[in-house]
Formats: sequence, C-alpha cells, structure tokens
Amino acid sequence: MSDLAGWRKRIDEIDQQLVKLLNERSQCAVEIGHLKKMLSQHAWQPQREAEILRNVVKANEGPLDDAAIRRLFERIIDEARSLERHSMEGGGSFRKE
Amino acid sequence: MSDLAGWRKRIDEIDQQLVKLLNERSQCAVEIGHLKKMLSQHAWQPQREAEILRNVVKANEGPLDDAAIRRLFERIIDEARSLERHSMEGGGSFRKE
Repeated sequence: MSDLAGWRKRIDEIDQQLVKLLNERSQCAVEIGHLKKMLSQHAWQPQREAEILRNVVKANEGPLDDAAIRRLFERIIDEARSLERHSMEGGGSFRKE
Repeated sequence: MSDLAGWRKRIDEIDQQLVKLLNERSQCAVEIGHLKKMLSQHAWQPQREAEILRNVVKANEGPLDDAAIRRLFERIIDEARSLERHSMEGGGSFRKE
C-alpha cells in the first residue's frame, strides 16, 4: 500500500477486532469475578498480573517495544480489574452512554 | 466454563492475539509516518484521532463501557503516535529489552 487512506482503512479494521477482543477479555474478567466471589478470593492477585505482563512481553515482536506493550497491558489489566471488582460486588450491567 | 484456570487460559489466548494486533496496528502507524514525511504532513492530526475514537465507541457492545474503551484507545493512539513520530524522524528499528 502506498496511500494514507489504505493504511487508515487497515487501522480501522484492526480497531474493530481490538474492540471485540478487549470486550471478550473483559467478559472473562467478569466471570472470574463471579467465581472469586463464590470462592471468597480477592480481586487483586499481583502474581497473576505479573504473569500476564511476562507473557505479553515474551510474545512481543515489535514494532512496539516491550515498555510500550507493558504500558498498554497495565491499562488493559486495570480496566479488567475494575469490571471484575464490580461483578464481585454484584454491580449492574453494561450501559451505553 | 466453571473454573478460574479455564477463564485465565482464555485470557492468555486473547492476550496473544492482542499483542499481534497492537503490533500490526503500530506497523501501519510506522508506514503512515513514512508517507507523511514524504508528503511533509504533521504527525498529529486531531480530526483523525477523534474519528478513531468515534469509530471504536460506536463498535462497543460492552461489557467495557464507552469511557473505558475511550481510555484504552487514547493510550493505543498515544503509543502509535510515538512510533509514527519516530519513523518520521528516521529513527532506529525495534529492539528487544
């Protein structure tokens, strides 16, 4: 591809997939929240978060550097943790703005 | 699935796909940086960034709420912009830590 529009179209396609995957990942966190509530476990499990970061840095082949991947997944984990906590507290469901 | 381990395995699989897609998206940003350099355009184009955020919020069906999707993509755009700038300055290639 040699045109800006073509690359931007590809970014838009990737973003649609990212939205789907980020939500699928978050649904897993919600389910984990329900299970942890039943098992009386805490939402915050630092060893598991460290494991996730190790895994994604190991999988990284660039062009994002490892620090960028770590920053992105720290944010992804942060949003998952909020949802997981919310589901452990028996919070309400998703609302569109 | 009714076990924590199963949901965590699913999260790990999703994370592998996310790392691939985030890097593919970043490669597009690098290519866009090269093109913009040839066309003498600026790296920062706020209308395009606003368009990206509108698209991802529109695609969002939860359980992440729209504010969470916006926060995540602001970070993703931020990392892309850094790489794009770097490629416009003729910066070096990816290095593993």
